[in-house]
Amino acid sequence: MNGIDNIRLDEFLRSALEEDVGTGDITTEATIPETALIEGLYVAKDDGIICGTEVCRRVFELCGGDVTLEFYKNDGDAVKKGDIIGKVAGNARAVLTGERLGLNIMQHLSGIATKTKYYVDAVAGTGARIADTRKATPGMRALEKYAVRVGGGSNHRMNLSDGVLIKDNHIVAAGGIGKAVAAAKKCAPHTMKIEVEVEDLAETKEALDAGADIIMLDNMAIPDMAAAVKLIGGRAVVEASGNMGDKTADELKKVAETGVDLISIGALTHSVKAFDISLKFTLKTK
Amino acid sequence: MNGIDNIRLDEFLRSALEEDVGTGDITTEATIPETALIEGLYVAKDDGIICGTEVCRRVFELCGGDVTLEFYKNDGDAVKKGDIIGKVAGNARAVLTGERLGLNIMQHLSGIATKTKYYVDAVAGTGARIADTRKATPGMRALEKYAVRVGGGSNHRMNLSDGVLIKDNHIVAAGGIGKAVAAAKKCAPHTMKIEVEVEDLAETKEALDAGADIIMLDNMAIPDMAAAVKLIGGRAVVEASGNMGDKTADELKKVAETGVDLISIGALTHSVKAFDISLKFTLKTK
Amino acid sequence: MNGIDNIRLDEFLRSALEEDVGTGDITTEATIPETALIEGLYVAKDDGIICGTEVCRRVFELCGGDVTLEFYKNDGDAVKKGDIIGKVAGNARAVLTGERLGLNIMQHLSGIATKTKYYVDAVAGTGARIADTRKATPGMRALEKYAVRVGGGSNHRMNLSDGVLIKDNHIVAAGGIGKAVAAAKKCAPHTMKIEVEVEDLAETKEALDAGADIIMLDNMAIPDMAAAVKLIGGRAVVEASGNMGDKTADELKKVAETGVDLISIGALTHSVKAFDISLKFTLKTK
Amino acid sequence: MNGIDNIRLDEFLRSALEEDVGTGDITTEATIPETALIEGLYVAKDDGIICGTEVCRRVFELCGGDVTLEFYKNDGDAVKKGDIIGKVAGNARAVLTGERLGLNIMQHLSGIATKTKYYVDAVAGTGARIADTRKATPGMRALEKYAVRVGGGSNHRMNLSDGVLIKDNHIVAAGGIGKAVAAAKKCAPHTMKIEVEVEDLAETKEALDAGADIIMLDNMAIPDMAAAVKLIGGRAVVEASGNMGDKTADELKKVAETGVDLISIGALTHSVKAFDISLKFTLKTK
Amino acid sequence: MNGIDNIRLDEFLRSALEEDVGTGDITTEATIPETALIEGLYVAKDDGIICGTEVCRRVFELCGGDVTLEFYKNDGDAVKKGDIIGKVAGNARAVLTGERLGLNIMQHLSGIATKTKYYVDAVAGTGARIADTRKATPGMRALEKYAVRVGGGSNHRMNLSDGVLIKDNHIVAAGGIGKAVAAAKKCAPHTMKIEVEVEDLAETKEALDAGADIIMLDNMAIPDMAAAVKLIGGRAVVEASGNMGDKTADELKKVAETGVDLISIGALTHSVKAFDISLKFTLKTK
Amino acid sequence: MNGIDNIRLDEFLRSALEEDVGTGDITTEATIPETALIEGLYVAKDDGIICGTEVCRRVFELCGGDVTLEFYKNDGDAVKKGDIIGKVAGNARAVLTGERLGLNIMQHLSGIATKTKYYVDAVAGTGARIADTRKATPGMRALEKYAVRVGGGSNHRMNLSDGVLIKDNHIVAAGGIGKAVAAAKKCAPHTMKIEVEVEDLAETKEALDAGADIIMLDNMAIPDMAAAVKLIGGRAVVEASGNMGDKTADELKKVAETGVDLISIGALTHSVKAFDISLKFTLKTK
Repeated sequence: MNGIDNIRLDEFLRSALEEDVGTGDITTEATIPETALIEGLYVAKDDGIICGTEVCRRVFELCGGDVTLEFYKNDGDAVKKGDIIGKVAGNARAVLTGERLGLNIMQHLSGIATKTKYYVDAVAGTGARIADTRKATPGMRALEKYAVRVGGGSNHRMNLSDGVLIKDNHIVAAGGIGKAVAAAKKCAPHTMKIEVEVEDLAETKEALDAGADIIMLDNMAIPDMAAAVKLIGGRAVVEASGNMGDKTADELKKVAETGVDLISIGALTHSVKAFDISLKFTLKTK
Repeated sequence: MNGIDNIRLDEFLRSALEEDVGTGDITTEATIPETALIEGLYVAKDDGIICGTEVCRRVFELCGGDVTLEFYKNDGDAVKKGDIIGKVAGNARAVLTGERLGLNIMQHLSGIATKTKYYVDAVAGTGARIADTRKATPGMRALEKYAVRVGGGSNHRMNLSDGVLIKDNHIVAAGGIGKAVAAAKKCAPHTMKIEVEVEDLAETKEALDAGADIIMLDNMAIPDMAAAVKLIGGRAVVEASGNMGDKTADELKKVAETGVDLISIGALTHSVKAFDISLKFTLKTK
Repeated sequence: MNGIDNIRLDEFLRSALEEDVGTGDITTEATIPETALIEGLYVAKDDGIICGTEVCRRVFELCGGDVTLEFYKNDGDAVKKGDIIGKVAGNARAVLTGERLGLNIMQHLSGIATKTKYYVDAVAGTGARIADTRKATPGMRALEKYAVRVGGGSNHRMNLSDGVLIKDNHIVAAGGIGKAVAAAKKCAPHTMKIEVEVEDLAETKEALDAGADIIMLDNMAIPDMAAAVKLIGGRAVVEASGNMGDKTADELKKVAETGVDLISIGALTHSVKAFDISLKFTLKTK
Repeated sequence: MNGIDNIRLDEFLRSALEEDVGTGDITTEATIPETALIEGLYVAKDDGIICGTEVCRRVFELCGGDVTLEFYKNDGDAVKKGDIIGKVAGNARAVLTGERLGLNIMQHLSGIATKTKYYVDAVAGTGARIADTRKATPGMRALEKYAVRVGGGSNHRMNLSDGVLIKDNHIVAAGGIGKAVAAAKKCAPHTMKIEVEVEDLAETKEALDAGADIIMLDNMAIPDMAAAVKLIGGRAVVEASGNMGDKTADELKKVAETGVDLISIGALTHSVKAFDISLKFTLKTK
Repeated sequence: MNGIDNIRLDEFLRSALEEDVGTGDITTEATIPETALIEGLYVAKDDGIICGTEVCRRVFELCGGDVTLEFYKNDGDAVKKGDIIGKVAGNARAVLTGERLGLNIMQHLSGIATKTKYYVDAVAGTGARIADTRKATPGMRALEKYAVRVGGGSNHRMNLSDGVLIKDNHIVAAGGIGKAVAAAKKCAPHTMKIEVEVEDLAETKEALDAGADIIMLDNMAIPDMAAAVKLIGGRAVVEASGNMGDKTADELKKVAETGVDLISIGALTHSVKAFDISLKFTLKTK
Repeated sequence: MNGIDNIRLDEFLRSALEEDVGTGDITTEATIPETALIEGLYVAKDDGIICGTEVCRRVFELCGGDVTLEFYKNDGDAVKKGDIIGKVAGNARAVLTGERLGLNIMQHLSGIATKTKYYVDAVAGTGARIADTRKATPGMRALEKYAVRVGGGSNHRMNLSDGVLIKDNHIVAAGGIGKAVAAAKKCAPHTMKIEVEVEDLAETKEALDAGADIIMLDNMAIPDMAAAVKLIGGRAVVEASGNMGDKTADELKKVAETGVDLISIGALTHSVKAFDISLKFTLKTK
């Protein structure tokens, strides 16, 4: 799957299956014959962007058993309430073992993709991109960042080791923005850009002078952001940050219109509303 | 920690730390001296119930390094916006390595506890308890169910192996409610109760006659629930279920007033709004 | 496989294969050509109940290589000394890598199923069921409990988290049976029954009054058990416990005839006599 | 601990704790205050050899919590029924979490050590040693082989990679005993002896001529064994094998008196009777 | 340790200890009393740069047991043949369990640091830095890259996910350098620079026009490199690559003098000569 | 694969793939269509012995995706510079994900096999075999020892638990060579030979008298080795050891001509020069 390491994904899904199945589905074993067949339809209960179909398919592959999935919507497709997203069919015991995990993931990722798309649409027409943060659900970061991309967003660094982000403490410790940027340039692989978080125009200028590749405007007022963008004048990438998830679409558009290149929003992944998908089964001949 | 297996918790936290730290925090290593000290205050940015302080402490223990945590609020305590929850202090590099994971977890769990408390308060004075479901975040189920308890809620089964819940497909496959309950009683350990999901009064009666220990009223109208409770007359535990998370506090209270014993709400764990906690650092002498 | 989580089973078998194979079967590699074929017959060396055929099959699947298994007896089938249980055939190196683990497990599980069946037969005609305990072999509990079911027995709780069993220390700590049961009812998921261990009639009455769902009569004399059963009068499930594995078939029947619902026996899993199965090979054309 | 790799031991114990604890001990959490203390005495319920005290101690260390163990008997000590083996004391919740696993292991290993000692005593005065086989409990081999040593026995190879044992199939595949031994000598590290399994005197001679370092007499009658020992005349180590666990002490002594160097017995580890140890608790001040 | 994730390091070291110790050090257990003490001195047998002292210390911590390490040389220090690097002292069994792994790692990492330093010295006085590649030893990449830094070198990307490096196939697939760079800019986090591998001046120009942040000159002749550096004129970072490990110090200096910013050398990690360190023990009083 | 445990191999390769792939190959995902095909030829850039083809094949199997490998040279085959070793073909994304790990391993193992063959050739015509040591790369020991066998060498013990090697400290602790050998014979499985390291003729005699099965002559001069061989007179296997990797082919032959049975060389695995193999790709139709 795009941008998802399959080996890690399998480890995550195996462990999540263990969590949900425990030592076995007692109810199903007691009541459903080994050879019974079942068929289920995934139906959208709301409007939004679908994400997680391939992960869901992988869940059933890891369950073993004879199960087939057919998806009529792919990751990134927009759906309307009532749309049929896909169909799962096969051995009833195997299907009932994997269905909850498949749904839990698909609803979570579709929730993220749908919210991302909402923000992406809010800033459409400006040059700004919507980005995620490290405020993600422990254990699900790679999947959540995938959902952000599926929703049209852009990823910030994956973790502390694949990006440099100099914040106030780093600056204090290093003895100023200039020294911090110089230290980072010396230490970090040459493949990484150096990002500096600033809080006002003075710091913006300092970061620019220090040779920052990216400047993050943290919690600045809109006019200040506009001024910062102007000051930077294209010499660094500009990222707006700070409670962006609390803003309305209109407010977010105003941020975008200051000319920033990216708006990063922690709420994309830290406050997820599951996208509602129903899975209605029909038990087939035994 | 209450009801959390420490060995599994450590595995989860180690893996989450790897996810967030990657191969090392480049920025911090470049800019912050090995011996620098830092101190940070956890401050509530909203009103709610705190949950996750001990998990947060464990995160820093696993990071190694010389870090101490002091919490002024314990899991389950109500906080007001602006309240100081706790303090982290110690080696700056170690603190900055663990702080994001600690916060991500504490915000997520406090979000769940806060929402649970909201529903618990809504039904206060009735005999109904608020319960969770299996619609939890993959990998975090034990922690999330702990947060539900901390918020005053009650846990449904942990997974497919520690509870019996007979749904429509099981009933169809077994050839009726009576046969399904009999099969489950024969198969399941004698320590488990048998729960049956029903959709109307006729099924309720059938479940009762079959000897179900718990009857789940799924998506029934309020008058029907009341009638079902009356019909059951204390001979089984009664659980109300079905989109309960979409209801207002008043609507939920009406459900509770039908006399059901439990109301289970998937949204407690599938749609979590992070409880906002800030962590403001002060770098100390090197 | 019924009631066995496949993902955990695979982890267990992989680790057991590593334990037995080490860094490779030196003898076989030195002496047996890569393309040699072999065929082996599993033959019962005693009378008993077979268990573990599907686990044995899975062992060879995990070994890789081209091996097929055919079983003429399924889990739960009674065999007589000399009966052919199954046949393994295929690449000689692969067969010889997996054969010892497959046999070790099949002999162990068949030993448990055979002993369980012995006790089940001893109480046949009474209403009592034979149950296992937590006195199982570390690492093999799910498999051992499966073998108990295959032998006609019934499972007690799987672990400390999926059942409530209040013993003397819990009672002392809580301040009496009544308080302990009330505390457990408040804490445990509503899907679990509350079991209390008692040692005499007075405690039996106390447990009953406290609303215990299951009452375990621990090490009580037969007349006392009978009196307890009478006292309980169907208002709780009754379990007999305490050195039951040391009793003869006749003694056990007397316990059953007191009217208890279950007799739990630690020796089912803590003192296992391997059921003897031979595996005689014929090397085929190279 | 002697001959036990601590890292693997910890992995095994952690996994066994997870198996027994599940997601937490509900009963204990509901009824026992966090600060309650408990004390328990380990008492032998039979005569035998104690084994597993240090493993038991490690179980409690891995549980965390404030628990101390004091053992009055060490691994290898003989105990009489009623002897106090040791004492566990500390936080009641922590003690009750680890006690079952600690006991399960100690009873299993003491059972093996006791049975080994029985056979060792049976052949006392002859030059024969008692050895184990690969017929061990999956997952517990290193511990079981340790228990055999503690009981006075000797270990055969640990797994397929640290010893060469040429059986009939290897001989057929290689084209005779001579060729099989030559192939093994060429392939195996020079640090390993070459062992050949033979069924009669002719094969014994062939193995000797081929330069076998160890000759295993498989299922041979006592006079044949004696003849084989004489034929070998000290030029190879001689091991007797084949249903030795079904023999009485007297019969085993007769085997030993043929002059064999070792008698290997699968039953030492494949059919273990748990050595009965009680653990009676006293709850202390809360 | 700087730039090394401690959790992953522990996993690696535990697994390496298992590899070396197997099921226990038979020789030591047989011959050395449990309470014997030992002391050993690490002595350099050559001139070079020391690396791995802290990893070595961690090896002994993971072994458990009472062992202390004292290092007189730290990672990065230059040593002469005969210099005493450090001392290990403590329980003889514990020391002998960990000593080989500690030495194997320290010799390997010091070998890398020493070779890196050799190349760093070769280009001293020019502006060029020496960098590593992905041609590292499987399993040891983080440690090897740490050794490169300790030797004065610079790290290239850690893996495929934390840097963008567009090679010929990517260019062909994307339909040209311009399209490939544009696609990468759209896809990759904004925190990463875009690197393009080129083989001649025409491609260099194309990459520059496409907005590449880094241009890798692959296997170009020295005059062509000089021309490329001139053409680029500071508008991109320039990296020289291609069999650089086969060059003499003089040849490498000539590459550096073309003005490239980095020279990346696979041989730093794919062809490591262990730096010879002896560890001579003195057994102390029992 | 011969002498390689497949389960452990898969764990190693999965972990190495995670190390190299991180959270996904950004460059490839950005530029190469999901359906693009690629073909690559493995070409020897030097003369040597090929090793690792089957491991390389397994790498691609674990990557998933539709990739086929065809090897024209097998492990152990000699190649000349320019020889085509094999071909990889299939889905371009899958091929590019696995190619670096496959190459890194194949180059490392071929480097070891090639060096081993060099030493084997150096002693050809004498009776001496070339053996490895425990000075191997952490994590890769089984693969490296396999490469030694592929190069015509012989393996020493795999780890501390599958061979007995008595060195000076063991001798001191045990109170002399005789006592140390006796202790080891008592403790070790009877399947293992007892090896003693000696430094002069006196110790050689002592070891012989003690009944050592193998005598390692450590760092002895050639005439002393010859005298020791003569003294031993075939009554024990003789191994020469100590900086053997620093010797020229001629010097090594002189060691072999003393009549020793084995020469063990740490440099076979601690100082590996990667055997250069190029992998030149052709992108096929999309």
